[in-house]
Amino acid sequence: MTQYKSVALIGCGRIGQSWAIVFSTARFHVRIFDNMPERLDDGLASIKSKMGKLEEKGLLRGNISAAEAFKFIKRTSSMDQCVTGASYVQECVFENFDLKRSVFAEAEKYASKDVILASSSGDMFPSRLSEGMKLKDRIIVAHPLNPPHLVPLVEIIAAPWTDPTVVTQARTILEDAGQVPIVAKKETAGFIICRIQHTVTAECFKLIRDDVISVNDLEKLMPYGLGMRYAFMGALEASHINTNGIKDFCSTYGEQVYELQKEAGPPIRLEGPPLEKIHQHLEQQFPRNKVEQRHEWKDQKLAELYKLKNETGN
Amino acid sequence: MTQYKSVALIGCGRIGQSWAIVFSTARFHVRIFDNMPERLDDGLASIKSKMGKLEEKGLLRGNISAAEAFKFIKRTSSMDQCVTGASYVQECVFENFDLKRSVFAEAEKYASKDVILASSSGDMFPSRLSEGMKLKDRIIVAHPLNPPHLVPLVEIIAAPWTDPTVVTQARTILEDAGQVPIVAKKETAGFIICRIQHTVTAECFKLIRDDVISVNDLEKLMPYGLGMRYAFMGALEASHINTNGIKDFCSTYGEQVYELQKEAGPPIRLEGPPLEKIHQHLEQQFPRNKVEQRHEWKDQKLAELYKLKNETGN
Repeated sequence: MTQYKSVALIGCGRIGQSWAIVFSTARFHVRIFDNMPERLDDGLASIKSKMGKLEEKGLLRGNISAAEAFKFIKRTSSMDQCVTGASYVQECVFENFDLKRSVFAEAEKYASKDVILASSSGDMFPSRLSEGMKLKDRIIVAHPLNPPHLVPLVEIIAAPWTDPTVVTQARTILEDAGQVPIVAKKETAGFIICRIQHTVTAECFKLIRDDVISVNDLEKLMPYGLGMRYAFMGALEASHINTNGIKDFCSTYGEQVYELQKEAGPPIRLEGPPLEKIHQHLEQQFPRNKVEQRHEWKDQKLAELYKLKNETGN
Repeated sequence: MTQYKSVALIGCGRIGQSWAIVFSTARFHVRIFDNMPERLDDGLASIKSKMGKLEEKGLLRGNISAAEAFKFIKRTSSMDQCVTGASYVQECVFENFDLKRSVFAEAEKYASKDVILASSSGDMFPSRLSEGMKLKDRIIVAHPLNPPHLVPLVEIIAAPWTDPTVVTQARTILEDAGQVPIVAKKETAGFIICRIQHTVTAECFKLIRDDVISVNDLEKLMPYGLGMRYAFMGALEASHINTNGIKDFCSTYGEQVYELQKEAGPPIRLEGPPLEKIHQHLEQQFPRNKVEQRHEWKDQKLAELYKLKNETGN
């Protein structure tokens, strides 16, 4: 039989490691597997190191020490050992459709009938991932932002044939683990996260194409402006409380919002001169050999923000 | 003659108060005026109280005490007294075109020839605000987010006839005051901030119209997900460092971004059933009588984030 707080993670890269921190700090029993044993060794060392560093700075999630949390994580050496008896399986392998399909095909051999099989994919439909599988009604996508232990949002997407209780249970499990799940009611391209993210990206490309602003200035817009607000408030709430309510906002600015969409014109392709300009700026600011350092900086900041958000409730 | 660090603020509402905190904590000499004397009294009391509370929590900007900063703010009882000798004038009156025009017309009577006249407007073109004025080459829009003393981004927009040195000087003054100015190279609808903000708003309305997600879940997307990332990183940087660079991102996801724009279909109006659903959720979560409280909570959070961002550099 499955144990409620028993989780299997398949894949021990950056996302797998982060999921391990999520679940272990919430006292879930985590079994982790990777088909490359050395990646498993490196991954486990990295999990230990990350949790230790967070603890030193007083930034570790949950009411648990790093050492204690680490004890909740068990290295496994086969899919069988990893998945058998788990109530929740999260695959965290590369974003490759065939690879994910084969992982699920292998996992369902050992999974119990009441398992939840979740994919970390950011854009593969669960219906395509699960098609033809024996446990296809137990499969969802549970797509996190990177890294899930610092950014708690997870979007859940079900296939048309997914058992509805799988979605409810997944939501509960993820909430118990301290995440903030949101549920897409249908499979639509880009799910939710990418629809918002990409709409911002496209607008940025248009602003650069039309030479309205320099890339350097544009990139300040979020971290010193809108992003600070969005770190605490929904996009719609901001409009609601900054006016006499959302209806007032819509009657005052609705026409402008409509006109801006019209003026935005046809879809833009992410290529050509705007891409060159953007590439030039980003390569200069964050050359390849400094990206790792930037990730560390970003994760440190996210950990501090995570703590700030949790300290006094949000 | 003008003094470099001498600033005049016209209007003592929420935005005017916040500008006063920005400039006084950076040791600018601030003169403030409002045509309603009681608003001036209330506004000054509110500035004092806000700075005091921030100081108590160790969250006041700059290297200055609240009491000392407050001494940099001088109440004036006429436009003449407020504007004469100021190097930088920021109007912070209501978002009403005729009102702003008349404020500038009055201000330029007393302003020196090398003044900078800045409007806080979020969507009025500086060319329309300054048309026909004697000092029309000295006028810009310097639009902050709310409140500027906690969210440092300011977008600067010039009219075609604005003296280019006005833009450079305004940028320097605002930077010296601790803000993060960005410059629009031309007057376009929505400037920069609203183009990004409204594109997100429109996408949210589409997601609700198409019943892809509940309003309650959708509103978690920013504060627990994308917004946390955007609090520290530009929208384009995120794509750059999460892949093998922005060009890699565009070749992997460019087609999806393009398709999503196509599928997004025609512009959406902010009305009808989606608005009703959104209104219902927001009114329930943040009814009118709790909005002030929510603003206080938000400002407290923003002050903590502001400190976090400044502590270890960003």
